[in-house]
Amino acid sequence: MEQMKNLAYYNGKITLIDDMMIPANDRGFYFGDGIYEAAMVFNHKIYALQDHLDRMFNSAAMLRIELPYTKEEVGALLSDLVLKVESGCQFLYWQVTRGTSPRNHLFPEGVTSNLYVYSKPWKGVEMSDEYRLKSIVDTRFFHCNIKTLNLIPNIMAAQQAKEAGCQEAVFVRDGYVTEGSHSNVSMIKDGVFITHPLDNLILPGTERKHIIAWCGELGIPVEERAFTLEELMEADEIIMSSTSHPSMRAMELDGKRVGMKNPELVQKLRDKYMEAIAQ
Amino acid sequence: MEQMKNLAYYNGKITLIDDMMIPANDRGFYFGDGIYEAAMVFNHKIYALQDHLDRMFNSAAMLRIELPYTKEEVGALLSDLVLKVESGCQFLYWQVTRGTSPRNHLFPEGVTSNLYVYSKPWKGVEMSDEYRLKSIVDTRFFHCNIKTLNLIPNIMAAQQAKEAGCQEAVFVRDGYVTEGSHSNVSMIKDGVFITHPLDNLILPGTERKHIIAWCGELGIPVEERAFTLEELMEADEIIMSSTSHPSMRAMELDGKRVGMKNPELVQKLRDKYMEAIAQ
Repeated sequence: MEQMKNLAYYNGKITLIDDMMIPANDRGFYFGDGIYEAAMVFNHKIYALQDHLDRMFNSAAMLRIELPYTKEEVGALLSDLVLKVESGCQFLYWQVTRGTSPRNHLFPEGVTSNLYVYSKPWKGVEMSDEYRLKSIVDTRFFHCNIKTLNLIPNIMAAQQAKEAGCQEAVFVRDGYVTEGSHSNVSMIKDGVFITHPLDNLILPGTERKHIIAWCGELGIPVEERAFTLEELMEADEIIMSSTSHPSMRAMELDGKRVGMKNPELVQKLRDKYMEAIAQ
Repeated sequence: MEQMKNLAYYNGKITLIDDMMIPANDRGFYFGDGIYEAAMVFNHKIYALQDHLDRMFNSAAMLRIELPYTKEEVGALLSDLVLKVESGCQFLYWQVTRGTSPRNHLFPEGVTSNLYVYSKPWKGVEMSDEYRLKSIVDTRFFHCNIKTLNLIPNIMAAQQAKEAGCQEAVFVRDGYVTEGSHSNVSMIKDGVFITHPLDNLILPGTERKHIIAWCGELGIPVEERAFTLEELMEADEIIMSSTSHPSMRAMELDGKRVGMKNPELVQKLRDKYMEAIAQ
């Protein structure tokens, strides 16, 4: 089979990413009316596919977007698409929008949701010990548990962090840390792994979920509770986790040295990740 | 000049609306990263164009989207486009997205924002005395003053209202009425026009602005202050205003009879609208 450098898919059509055209009447374009997922692909196998499919279907259900396929069917399609890309390590992204229809707030009738997918070469597993973080007031909506395409506040925060010489933002709502602009925030304090509980203020991250499971296997206590920015400042370790950046240790927060006091525990969790993706 | 039934424009290209294709790499499609405006067109002239251009440039500035043209230039382009559509009454929509670039939260460098426009026939001035409203908890972000494409909560509220047999939703945040899913909410009580102040919780509606000006001309006192849902229930009149639906009187809110007690004052404001669009 001849492979492609990268691939985009939209409702059955396949092109290179830069060449893909979609109708301006896709509700994603004028309402951001859709949900998405991203996954890593190692050796042409999608890592944690089931977790992403589960979350995809949950997100769609919460927005009442109908998916005209089963998890197995979309999983099979995605698995087939990544085979067509030549790279051994890929970043796979897919999104579903409510459909193509003239602009109207009301749900369109008689239309099917649109599936857009792309996969492209990725540089490999990214883990850093040198993240700088910037705290930013969390002014987002109260649906952060849904992985939607309404990402303007996340974009603005990521850009603000970058301009402050940082790699990620840390959202703070009413004094409590929620999450990053595109990752979950967790901390280690006195040997305990502490992370925001699953509610409408954070995304249920797949890496967050895996780390909690690994903590169980490793005998590391886990507390799912909200913590303040001050607590985060005093943490032994700050870990930012996401699909594409599964384990980023922060060494600086708002210009102050933070964390970096329990490298052994961080290493254990990183080893678990490397084991998991090798399977 | 041969005219079209309707028209879409994207970065210089012109087609019928249903035929317009845009790149999947437009940041509007995967982040909702853009702003928009809508205006009425009567006899091929854009009503309140300057107000819309002012707000467009404000919205773009707040999201730090660069516009490579002046207000005069984009106004001239829009004015030219509506001449190409055959209908004497049109609904004109335009949006600007941050640019076309591979997906990345950070602002893309070296790209120009995208301008998408469409105009289509409209049924004429819509005013109703029969709106039913449904109150819905306002769970939106704290940037409602920016007219962004991140509209999922607005869509969900509009759909919920429709399914309850209503024509609009009324958002309530912390007990106070903010606005509708696609209109401003105002009320008349004891001869006073009362509407939410301009802050980050509501859109600075162009019709809201015009009505306030007309109240000044008519000697009607105006209070710009937050009011509760209970106050709205007891109002003499409830008026929902937007560009496409400039003066909708509500007769029902959450299943209860409301308003409809000062038709003379409503009529004066409607007359002002009809005068304004005739100019």
